[in-house]
Amino acid sequence: MHQIKVGLIGFGTVGAGMVEVLINNRELIKDRVGADIVLKKIADLDIDSDRGVKIDPTILTTDAMEIVDDPEIDVIVELIGGCDQAMEYILMAMERGKHVVTANKALLAEYGREIYLAADQYRVSLAFEASVGGGIPIIRSLREGLSANRIKNIMGILNGTSNYILTQMTQRDLPYSQAVKEAIDLGYAEDPPTLDVDGTDAAHKLAILLSIALGIPVSFKSIYREGIDRLTPEDIRFAREFGYCLKLLAVARDLGDGVEARVHPAMVPHDHILANVNEAYNAIYLEGDFVGPNLYYGLGAGRRPTASAVVSDIIYLARQIKHGIKTLMPPLAHPLSRKEEIVIQPMEELNTVYYIRFYADDKPGVLAKISGVLGRNQISIASVIQKGREAYGPVPIVMLTHEAREKSVQEAMKEINQLDVVRSDKTMLIRVEKGHQGERAQ
Amino acid sequence: MHQIKVGLIGFGTVGAGMVEVLINNRELIKDRVGADIVLKKIADLDIDSDRGVKIDPTILTTDAMEIVDDPEIDVIVELIGGCDQAMEYILMAMERGKHVVTANKALLAEYGREIYLAADQYRVSLAFEASVGGGIPIIRSLREGLSANRIKNIMGILNGTSNYILTQMTQRDLPYSQAVKEAIDLGYAEDPPTLDVDGTDAAHKLAILLSIALGIPVSFKSIYREGIDRLTPEDIRFAREFGYCLKLLAVARDLGDGVEARVHPAMVPHDHILANVNEAYNAIYLEGDFVGPNLYYGLGAGRRPTASAVVSDIIYLARQIKHGIKTLMPPLAHPLSRKEEIVIQPMEELNTVYYIRFYADDKPGVLAKISGVLGRNQISIASVIQKGREAYGPVPIVMLTHEAREKSVQEAMKEINQLDVVRSDKTMLIRVEKGHQGERAQ
Repeated sequence: MHQIKVGLIGFGTVGAGMVEVLINNRELIKDRVGADIVLKKIADLDIDSDRGVKIDPTILTTDAMEIVDDPEIDVIVELIGGCDQAMEYILMAMERGKHVVTANKALLAEYGREIYLAADQYRVSLAFEASVGGGIPIIRSLREGLSANRIKNIMGILNGTSNYILTQMTQRDLPYSQAVKEAIDLGYAEDPPTLDVDGTDAAHKLAILLSIALGIPVSFKSIYREGIDRLTPEDIRFAREFGYCLKLLAVARDLGDGVEARVHPAMVPHDHILANVNEAYNAIYLEGDFVGPNLYYGLGAGRRPTASAVVSDIIYLARQIKHGIKTLMPPLAHPLSRKEEIVIQPMEELNTVYYIRFYADDKPGVLAKISGVLGRNQISIASVIQKGREAYGPVPIVMLTHEAREKSVQEAMKEINQLDVVRSDKTMLIRVEKGHQGERAQ
Repeated sequence: MHQIKVGLIGFGTVGAGMVEVLINNRELIKDRVGADIVLKKIADLDIDSDRGVKIDPTILTTDAMEIVDDPEIDVIVELIGGCDQAMEYILMAMERGKHVVTANKALLAEYGREIYLAADQYRVSLAFEASVGGGIPIIRSLREGLSANRIKNIMGILNGTSNYILTQMTQRDLPYSQAVKEAIDLGYAEDPPTLDVDGTDAAHKLAILLSIALGIPVSFKSIYREGIDRLTPEDIRFAREFGYCLKLLAVARDLGDGVEARVHPAMVPHDHILANVNEAYNAIYLEGDFVGPNLYYGLGAGRRPTASAVVSDIIYLARQIKHGIKTLMPPLAHPLSRKEEIVIQPMEELNTVYYIRFYADDKPGVLAKISGVLGRNQISIASVIQKGREAYGPVPIVMLTHEAREKSVQEAMKEINQLDVVRSDKTMLIRVEKGHQGERAQ
């Protein structure tokens, strides 16, 4: 039986999970591939700690170059994370004709173009299912299952940690700080969980999905990012009154003459299927011109789901290698042009619906002042909640606008925050996404 | 540029959709495949009707054998449906070395083994993404994206027509007969919609999914089927009181020492993600041993979504053909043993929770009689709703059991239906599925 030899660089949580899959499901995988997948070497700086998986200790090395330089190894799996070293190993492995599996979303989102070009140059395959959505096969679906479609719209809950935090805030009425603390204590969040809660991680993943949808590398730096740390349980309650849930959404839209790409807290209609994605789950909702709306849902992180994706990539490559193919398709499932760049629409050109909350003195004429500013900026109000005073001090005024332009809304916010009746430090602006759930089949 | 030549047999709704995709997205697809997909011939008995797509009329023929026998054609797409003729064309095409794309779930569910063996024998590929879940890439996900996993559990809403009917019954409190009538009027259901509402169509699709999960053809005949025609808006309301939604579910479970496979109305907890799959949407929820819970959601039928799946299959084959590969993997993504058979657990051995509704005379002692019979059959009751009489005549008594054995429940039902206080024609039994939504990531 054909043997496919694999080298693993980075024996952390996901690396150990990958080894566990290869051990536990070895016979099943051998049957599915028609070849035996052999883990020939594992490199890590720490080769002493027990990872809870049984391996022959002689395959461990502290020198990743032993893997990169091993002519017998067909596939290297890069799971060290970070950018510099990971990039170096990947490029060297490709140069030596090895196929690469990686879960490194930051690397692909920042230096994807270089890596995709190297894969092309050295005629090797690059697989990165684990970089987005944990075990959810969303990358394979975009590259293959939906390949007949122009992707018009992507809306993703791509960060499990922030979704977990928002779920606790929503279901248990917790303030942000307490929900974060619990998430850290339970091991769902790092301490501090900066990249998870500030939108960076979700923007990395959106950059990857959008790159495949368009067939052109998109740098995550061009994606607008806003985190969840200013959200309050009060906004979640107001959202509910308007019929919405609060989620950290990654949104991309093909506008025909440009592309929208942004990560920020957003209100989603409570009957939209994304509204029911809770806890640490991820989901990607997308629309193709023929397939219509699709949703993919599962655990977006964790040792076992991520290992499932890594090993499915190894199997994908093994099936090709067995047939003597180097690259069935390029990384983005399109030939890579060296020049093309995607221009992301500037955020200020966005048109959407806005939720706005002000804290203002409970005096006659306040609402008139605020709505006057909005009106002068061409923003029309769809509904208002103004709660009576329960104590002395400022009271919340909450509004949903009709569709408006981001630039106008930002300008109106500045003006309103300068009104002496408004507590400018407590103003909140949240974008609203309208969904398509419940529409009928054609 | 390489050309891949395709012949289409069956120019109906989906066939016309496929042509539309190939025309509308031709440049995009050419770019993604790196080859030009050319539709060389279309066979249909009716070559005169306008399908709303622009084609060169000289490619039309009434003789499917012109396609089967054309040595230039690489891929045939079978979209005539039905079993006899479709089977014949598929086998002849395979014999002539052609790859096959089909959307024919009935054929695969009944004669899959024969077709998979022929693909093996003639070393050609068979692709059938459109046979389950319309445009949802569930077959590709099972064959590839989840290939590292042992699939433990599948729960699917696989028939859009019955889901549409149940959604109307639930949201608008309509009786079954009226919801069906509306579905027929709106074109969501055939008249009569027998195979959709009696569970046959969903069982066909479950047979296909289970075959891939196990790597062994499963005949749909071994799958228990029960339809939705006896459900009432009253049961839907009681279900809601207990915290459940009513769905027509296709369920398969790998029990280690056997396999469960069944299609019937089932109650799903209202916070399970499947509970929010409404209208004509389909969804497949599954659990793998590493990936954990996953959900795939989209339009399960219709011209455009189904055409999306058909063309993604053509692209999949074109990418292989371009590289000179005949079969990257067998149809079920496992080598096919000629002998192995799956034994489906007899329905009477099922253990689950049951919803039972009786209509009984509103007399003292009735509940005691009914619960006595249940107790003697080892069925314990978890909760009871007994509504007071609003008019003369029998009143509903509704129960949820703890986990019980199907055989015992059926025997108890028979006994209870013989009680003179019970209106036996109005007894209802619905199985309850417990879900895993809301559980935490590992």
